[in-house]
Amino acid sequence: MQTQAHSAPPPSGRLLEHPAREEIRLESVLHALADPMRLLVVRALAAADCEQACSVFDLPVSKSTTTHHFRVLRESGVIRQVYRATAKMNSLRRDDLDALFPGLLDSVLAAGALQAERLGG
Amino acid sequence: MQTQAHSAPPPSGRLLEHPAREEIRLESVLHALADPMRLLVVRALAAADCEQACSVFDLPVSKSTTTHHFRVLRESGVIRQVYRATAKMNSLRRDDLDALFPGLLDSVLAAGALQAERLGG
Repeated sequence: MQTQAHSAPPPSGRLLEHPAREEIRLESVLHALADPMRLLVVRALAAADCEQACSVFDLPVSKSTTTHHFRVLRESGVIRQVYRATAKMNSLRRDDLDALFPGLLDSVLAAGALQAERLGG
Repeated sequence: MQTQAHSAPPPSGRLLEHPAREEIRLESVLHALADPMRLLVVRALAAADCEQACSVFDLPVSKSTTTHHFRVLRESGVIRQVYRATAKMNSLRRDDLDALFPGLLDSVLAAGALQAERLGG
């Protein structure tokens, strides 16, 4: 957990492990997106279009489950997490995902929005 | 396992359970596609563009695991399975998926092809 695959200088001394772009796998990305809570987080990050602290996501699950979901998203390459002071900040790895899998993230986001509308979610 | 949600008359007396179009959920579809073997099957069905018997898929897993993968694909709404005589025939539910989640299946298929090319798969 003390290595970092990307080259941007970290904002604080505490680093979190991320796959490099070329290590990201479609199956892991789809698995990460296949959970309703994680899809909710990804949709919120896409809508916010800027870093969000984990604490702004008031998911109807325990804190440890929330942490697990963010970890799955990070380790699959869907989000980047950095510490800023004591907050863990999250952002979508849109550039990496769009470069590897053109159109995939947008179609999943659109599908999630359509389904939420259809089911009243 | 003795009901069938769609209205097409079955080709044989043995029926397999399928979700109706409105019962298909994005999370289940993504989960079904998140497995390498299942993604391989879906890519092959898309390339064939016609019904394929389970037996033509020579997956490097046991017969029972193969059966499990096809069942996950069917129960998530990704494929339709019908018995024709003793063969179980499989086809993509492209119309249903495209209607519910426009562009999703195509972007996953394209991403799978790109990754296979990149990794030499």
